[in-house]
Amino acid sequence: MTKTRHQPIDAALVPRFAGHSTFMRLPAVDSAAGLDIALVGIPWDGGTTNRAGARHGPREVRNQSSLMRRANHQTGIAPYDIASVADVGDLAVQPIDLMSALRQIEEGIAAICAQGARPLSVGGDHLTTLPVLRAISKALGKPLGLVQFDAHSDTNDSYFGDNPYTHGTPFRRAIEEGILDPARIVQIGIRGSVYAADEHRWAKDQGIRIVYIEEFSERGPAEIMAEVHAIIGAGPAYVTFDIDSIDPSMAPGTGTPEIGGLTTREAQTMLRLLSGLNIVGADVVEVAPPFDLGGMTALAGATMMFELLCVMAEGVGQSVASA
Amino acid sequence: MTKTRHQPIDAALVPRFAGHSTFMRLPAVDSAAGLDIALVGIPWDGGTTNRAGARHGPREVRNQSSLMRRANHQTGIAPYDIASVADVGDLAVQPIDLMSALRQIEEGIAAICAQGARPLSVGGDHLTTLPVLRAISKALGKPLGLVQFDAHSDTNDSYFGDNPYTHGTPFRRAIEEGILDPARIVQIGIRGSVYAADEHRWAKDQGIRIVYIEEFSERGPAEIMAEVHAIIGAGPAYVTFDIDSIDPSMAPGTGTPEIGGLTTREAQTMLRLLSGLNIVGADVVEVAPPFDLGGMTALAGATMMFELLCVMAEGVGQSVASA
Amino acid sequence: MTKTRHQPIDAALVPRFAGHSTFMRLPAVDSAAGLDIALVGIPWDGGTTNRAGARHGPREVRNQSSLMRRANHQTGIAPYDIASVADVGDLAVQPIDLMSALRQIEEGIAAICAQGARPLSVGGDHLTTLPVLRAISKALGKPLGLVQFDAHSDTNDSYFGDNPYTHGTPFRRAIEEGILDPARIVQIGIRGSVYAADEHRWAKDQGIRIVYIEEFSERGPAEIMAEVHAIIGAGPAYVTFDIDSIDPSMAPGTGTPEIGGLTTREAQTMLRLLSGLNIVGADVVEVAPPFDLGGMTALAGATMMFELLCVMAEGVGQSVASA
Amino acid sequence: MTKTRHQPIDAALVPRFAGHSTFMRLPAVDSAAGLDIALVGIPWDGGTTNRAGARHGPREVRNQSSLMRRANHQTGIAPYDIASVADVGDLAVQPIDLMSALRQIEEGIAAICAQGARPLSVGGDHLTTLPVLRAISKALGKPLGLVQFDAHSDTNDSYFGDNPYTHGTPFRRAIEEGILDPARIVQIGIRGSVYAADEHRWAKDQGIRIVYIEEFSERGPAEIMAEVHAIIGAGPAYVTFDIDSIDPSMAPGTGTPEIGGLTTREAQTMLRLLSGLNIVGADVVEVAPPFDLGGMTALAGATMMFELLCVMAEGVGQSVASA
Amino acid sequence: MTKTRHQPIDAALVPRFAGHSTFMRLPAVDSAAGLDIALVGIPWDGGTTNRAGARHGPREVRNQSSLMRRANHQTGIAPYDIASVADVGDLAVQPIDLMSALRQIEEGIAAICAQGARPLSVGGDHLTTLPVLRAISKALGKPLGLVQFDAHSDTNDSYFGDNPYTHGTPFRRAIEEGILDPARIVQIGIRGSVYAADEHRWAKDQGIRIVYIEEFSERGPAEIMAEVHAIIGAGPAYVTFDIDSIDPSMAPGTGTPEIGGLTTREAQTMLRLLSGLNIVGADVVEVAPPFDLGGMTALAGATMMFELLCVMAEGVGQSVASA
Amino acid sequence: MTKTRHQPIDAALVPRFAGHSTFMRLPAVDSAAGLDIALVGIPWDGGTTNRAGARHGPREVRNQSSLMRRANHQTGIAPYDIASVADVGDLAVQPIDLMSALRQIEEGIAAICAQGARPLSVGGDHLTTLPVLRAISKALGKPLGLVQFDAHSDTNDSYFGDNPYTHGTPFRRAIEEGILDPARIVQIGIRGSVYAADEHRWAKDQGIRIVYIEEFSERGPAEIMAEVHAIIGAGPAYVTFDIDSIDPSMAPGTGTPEIGGLTTREAQTMLRLLSGLNIVGADVVEVAPPFDLGGMTALAGATMMFELLCVMAEGVGQSVASA
Repeated sequence: MTKTRHQPIDAALVPRFAGHSTFMRLPAVDSAAGLDIALVGIPWDGGTTNRAGARHGPREVRNQSSLMRRANHQTGIAPYDIASVADVGDLAVQPIDLMSALRQIEEGIAAICAQGARPLSVGGDHLTTLPVLRAISKALGKPLGLVQFDAHSDTNDSYFGDNPYTHGTPFRRAIEEGILDPARIVQIGIRGSVYAADEHRWAKDQGIRIVYIEEFSERGPAEIMAEVHAIIGAGPAYVTFDIDSIDPSMAPGTGTPEIGGLTTREAQTMLRLLSGLNIVGADVVEVAPPFDLGGMTALAGATMMFELLCVMAEGVGQSVASA
Repeated sequence: MTKTRHQPIDAALVPRFAGHSTFMRLPAVDSAAGLDIALVGIPWDGGTTNRAGARHGPREVRNQSSLMRRANHQTGIAPYDIASVADVGDLAVQPIDLMSALRQIEEGIAAICAQGARPLSVGGDHLTTLPVLRAISKALGKPLGLVQFDAHSDTNDSYFGDNPYTHGTPFRRAIEEGILDPARIVQIGIRGSVYAADEHRWAKDQGIRIVYIEEFSERGPAEIMAEVHAIIGAGPAYVTFDIDSIDPSMAPGTGTPEIGGLTTREAQTMLRLLSGLNIVGADVVEVAPPFDLGGMTALAGATMMFELLCVMAEGVGQSVASA
Repeated sequence: MTKTRHQPIDAALVPRFAGHSTFMRLPAVDSAAGLDIALVGIPWDGGTTNRAGARHGPREVRNQSSLMRRANHQTGIAPYDIASVADVGDLAVQPIDLMSALRQIEEGIAAICAQGARPLSVGGDHLTTLPVLRAISKALGKPLGLVQFDAHSDTNDSYFGDNPYTHGTPFRRAIEEGILDPARIVQIGIRGSVYAADEHRWAKDQGIRIVYIEEFSERGPAEIMAEVHAIIGAGPAYVTFDIDSIDPSMAPGTGTPEIGGLTTREAQTMLRLLSGLNIVGADVVEVAPPFDLGGMTALAGATMMFELLCVMAEGVGQSVASA
Repeated sequence: MTKTRHQPIDAALVPRFAGHSTFMRLPAVDSAAGLDIALVGIPWDGGTTNRAGARHGPREVRNQSSLMRRANHQTGIAPYDIASVADVGDLAVQPIDLMSALRQIEEGIAAICAQGARPLSVGGDHLTTLPVLRAISKALGKPLGLVQFDAHSDTNDSYFGDNPYTHGTPFRRAIEEGILDPARIVQIGIRGSVYAADEHRWAKDQGIRIVYIEEFSERGPAEIMAEVHAIIGAGPAYVTFDIDSIDPSMAPGTGTPEIGGLTTREAQTMLRLLSGLNIVGADVVEVAPPFDLGGMTALAGATMMFELLCVMAEGVGQSVASA
Repeated sequence: MTKTRHQPIDAALVPRFAGHSTFMRLPAVDSAAGLDIALVGIPWDGGTTNRAGARHGPREVRNQSSLMRRANHQTGIAPYDIASVADVGDLAVQPIDLMSALRQIEEGIAAICAQGARPLSVGGDHLTTLPVLRAISKALGKPLGLVQFDAHSDTNDSYFGDNPYTHGTPFRRAIEEGILDPARIVQIGIRGSVYAADEHRWAKDQGIRIVYIEEFSERGPAEIMAEVHAIIGAGPAYVTFDIDSIDPSMAPGTGTPEIGGLTTREAQTMLRLLSGLNIVGADVVEVAPPFDLGGMTALAGATMMFELLCVMAEGVGQSVASA
Repeated sequence: MTKTRHQPIDAALVPRFAGHSTFMRLPAVDSAAGLDIALVGIPWDGGTTNRAGARHGPREVRNQSSLMRRANHQTGIAPYDIASVADVGDLAVQPIDLMSALRQIEEGIAAICAQGARPLSVGGDHLTTLPVLRAISKALGKPLGLVQFDAHSDTNDSYFGDNPYTHGTPFRRAIEEGILDPARIVQIGIRGSVYAADEHRWAKDQGIRIVYIEEFSERGPAEIMAEVHAIIGAGPAYVTFDIDSIDPSMAPGTGTPEIGGLTTREAQTMLRLLSGLNIVGADVVEVAPPFDLGGMTALAGATMMFELLCVMAEGVGQSVASA
């Protein structure tokens, strides 16, 4: 089957403010059939421990993604020429019952995988990544590596007594469930005060490589990303981009801001250096529009999504099955 | 041909913040074929003399229209049960050249009329109403009546020297062109300081009935709307709702705010009393999101659009041709 | 035991922006012991179907309540001279698990009742009222009457499939549980489009008196409140004030705004006319600061809380036990 | 000497957003010489007890006054045709030392009076009115009457121990100093909780007529303004318009908001009914831009200023000396 | 003729929030006669393809420029001591007809040149630079060099079919018209996704030197500016500063934001290194206040204007004629 | 006496949005008795020459400090385990009379010192630091060293004629009064245009070491802080952190923003390098919430306060008396 190379509406023909709002101004399609990469929204924030609002993330990232054009000015990648990409809409997740919501998300992503597409999703809070990882790992039949851009490790055990599922715990659960390989996890940009001086002990004991912002500042994107390639290797990898990895002056619209974060320039540089990894899925999470200022965070999220799309499109020649 | 009774996505099933953003959460369709009423955006504000921004109106009215449900709590009208309604998208109007833009708008609306649907549009600035009136009047082969809710008469002659087409002049042009019947025009809510004490002389000389806000306050919605029915009669009528008719505390997102305006309660009451008129088209204009506060203006616009939809749906039994 | 007549910090002595932020600038106390009326926050919005944020309500209502002074300029009531009132803090409700949260709220209010105080709470979304009613009804051993100011009836059956507990269902549940007497319920200010023309059929069949905004506009506060007294009678009554009863121009910070609402002037007039009812508890709910504009909604909420406090203080002579 | 009838820049010729920002787009002049009415800013808020910011009022009122046109649509008054009006700039008042600031304001206004012009000023907090009254009363050699639109009586004795000069005390001081005649003072729109039930005892004992918002709501603008004429009579009168008389939904940008206020429509109606009084000066105070939303308060202030200008222009035939 | 060394109002004498708002608090003058450098606003954004609003730029840059003082803390330049500078107001450009507007701008700047002053303007969108370049080039009788700080090359051919004049095309037109020498053009800060991978082919073929943000990050301000001097040489040069060259976290108020931009620190460093060039005019464009946050973008624009003023003042000894 | 090691409320047990708002979620206590470090608010901005608002600083810094956790992720310091820390509330300073206010502040801090605690305060404008320095210097009986992070030197002589006390003059006064040792003062981050090229002449003549932002950019945090240690030495030192030292994109809520400032990452690095100094008190000043965006500035202020707390807690073993 020849896949359709969907193209965005051209802003030099139709103004950016016109037309229905879709990711990257791509066509809205009913399913992932025939796609290499499925852009999908997961409007759910039921795992949020402080300021909710990421449920509104997909809508605003769609709006701001109207500012994206067709090619990457630095790498020269034109993703729509090398991969079939479209907007498959939002997963219909209800906001009331957490356990049902996790099932709804997993089923939605599983359906995308079953059609041979790789998901590039927009959350939603960071707990949405757990059911996404479940679906992809099941589809591939193996644990995944993880490149995580984040202010927080998100490997805590529980909150508010005995709640095991919050946006502060997904990667602990994923390791426990065997869907992530802890030896192939890198977390970049971690910072902010901690509950206890040894809060990251468990994560480090599992083998997770934590790159604190201070180390990042010292060593820079190139050196860090070289290490990322060494750790992740050739196996299937998932990339999760928590928008709070970015400094709150550049991404204020998020639930748990921590000052002293990555600049968008640094983040873009790192995402481009993901090139060569076998990326089986990716997401941008924790964009919370009620706390955003002038759409700035949604624009940063949309641009990171475009950068992720470019590196994912590069890898499309490799089938998900071979991953 | 049996028409499809498109239904909105039910907010009791899929949360309002999920899914692509369309007018009233109705399906996005490619053309007006098979529709009784076509919801359409006209994202253009090139006629604006002060603060532009209404070009962004359709997108935000779509977003806020996700708060609308299926039936009118007061009149009991369920528009989607009695009329075929869908979102036909935005007219692709370029923002640079005014005369071309007016042609693009007229052609877009003419296509809707040609398919037998009545347009219910969201602007855009008030100059967009001129090409809409041109298209409908041509389709019907006769001049139209006009019910205009507005802070301003918009019957000035020209601006900035000799510019005849601005959002302050559409109804003067429409009368000159013979597409509006001045004896069947009512303007409600007019207020604000004026360029000259006799600024409305021309309009009154044509036979336009101007209801200033002070008279409205004295007499109330019921009495005013009875007069509207008397003036408009049974012939085809267009309803134009400039959001600046509403008080700026309730609709701050507009280009030329005037304090002391209609309350939304008063406006809703009046729109419901349009029932019985032969409405061949309607619009909501001058919603300017860059000046809005928390989506308040877009929500007011979306609700006025829903009220207009309800009274238009009532009239669907009468074909456009018989109008 | 002589109760302490706690007094607010005087803004003519210490500026309003100084000092810890408590409800009405009253002392923060550890328990309701010795209080007639306990001011309490319920920062939880897990029942919200659209825009969350009411979890932040108590903090901002506290901040804005610093604008309240000691006496009611119209009724002359000085509540702190006739009742013992203080701020007992927030209930510690976790945001992740809905059923646990409902239990935590009920237990917290039950503790206040057990100490002989009447709760005046600030939500939180409207589902918080359900466990509050459970606690008070159990303490009194009888069903309660209800005066509800609201844009929505909140008597739907379920959402998103089969979720029985959301902020759109509390009063249906309360009637089913026998903690509200449907013949002693009045809902005022109801409006907005509905899911179906007969959406309120169930409520009306139970005997609930619904006063739509249109009827209210026709008849006015005095007449409506006379009917409220006739319906509620001398038995114990709860007053719930959903801030979305107020027009969104005056209270934009809420999850489900509906235009055409009550003015604050109308609402204040009605709350003062509650005088004489046997009010065993009250709340202000659905203040959602992330959607507020300049604290306007929180200020409206704080003022409504003060008006409720004044009429509750009047009734303090009647013990809860005798209710 | 023939006075120059300065005209505003015409918005139909030069867009409102162009050109230097002056009151009403009038010329900026160096002194009040040759003027009948001097528009002047008093950017000072050192008397503010809670939220400062009115120091920025003149600049934003100037900006929003660009929306004003040349004539009053309701009364037909074209002020620039019957009076010489211009913008004399701001008084240069330092923000650090209160007593010096009061002197600077008095001297500035005295200079305007000495040139035969009547001041129409924009504050600044309400304490600015005290030195303005001092200057005018001295120039006229007699106490003045006062029409005060306000949420607060501003007749308290002192704050924070023994500070006699704050924005809550100006009219007590003015009465004590003999520059206001308490029998010719009317305060309209008073509301909000009070420090004590008898807080207004002193004011009433002096003979001040207080029209609370509740009485206003009952009786309406026409009846109240008839009483104002009876009380004020033919003597010289000052009109002070505290923007907090307006409801905070329409004028959020102020230091001490009180819900339940006047609508702008009601206020405009009342200001027009000032016609016939001998107005020797007027002001709009307490517009605090840092708390404003979208310029809404400054626009309300600018429009009230225009309404005041219209009634003052009517009275220009009567010289200040004869007042 | 001895020129007047106009001085700004001293903020240590008159508070910054007081007085009429002019560029740098300099006197407003009627013409450029006697000036070395004329500060002028061009409030027009009719060439904007996406979000309009730059028409409001001059007013807000004037407001924020009240924060500027008299001397450059780093270079020690006190521009008002070495050059005659004043605010000549805004060009009166109408917003409706694009071709007329371009003529109005060119005529306005030509008048300034004819009086021997160099223009330092504030836009307005980037299309305003085209008529400015026309006027200056004509006055000098030769093509100019260009130092352009920008996120976008603005050398596209046309938009929306065949519109040759938009804010994405000015420098292509200027080269075609022979008023810019493409071999003497440097563009710095270019970034963001592109319409096609070879979008900048035409520009590069003309000889334009494009410094993408990635190269800038690698090499730094000093090295880049050394190359600028080599390319521009001793001939007359124009400096255009598009505020979107700055990162959107520091300059959110613009029509086409691109993340990953210059910091203000980097930009200030580069502007100071313009010292020694023969700058015959300069501008700051694309400040769009409706999208600004707290005046941050206008403040950045005002500061860049001050930095440009300092380097232009240095060059005043060289007459325009000798350029 | 064994001191109580007060602990913050744990956000993993009680959500951050719940409970009364105190600094760091620590207990609110009545006095500094038994504390090593007293967190205290100074809500006063009467020394502000431009935009007031810092009076609201303590409240919003408290709110945002709810995002702080228990330990420093980089240094490993857990301040509450090694020092007794609590929130002693705000000093009750009246906003009307400057000289009285300075006395009230000095007395409030003197009381804290008398109880053996070191103050870590949140302003308030920078003039609040003067009476704080007076109190501490008197308590210690010697002049202090000063590490000042700031955009401005704040060593001017007077404003608006002869006002010696403004937020632009505190350190000149402190040197004149002998409470600061000018040879032990370092100012870091100074920038922005100046009143005169030699504006800092007096400061440098006294021996103050000024590190302009340009020098800082060249040399970096480590080198600068090494010099700080050399200059300050072992004697008692005060650290004052003016939030305007941070770039306005990261800290917009301040009265006198200057672009080109420190990043929060740079600031955090420097504060951690204060380790080893004998810090007898510290403050964060000039956080002005009315100009803040989304609480970003208050969050930066709260985080800087936490960093200061960490280095102060390290030094607690050394008694104030021995300092």
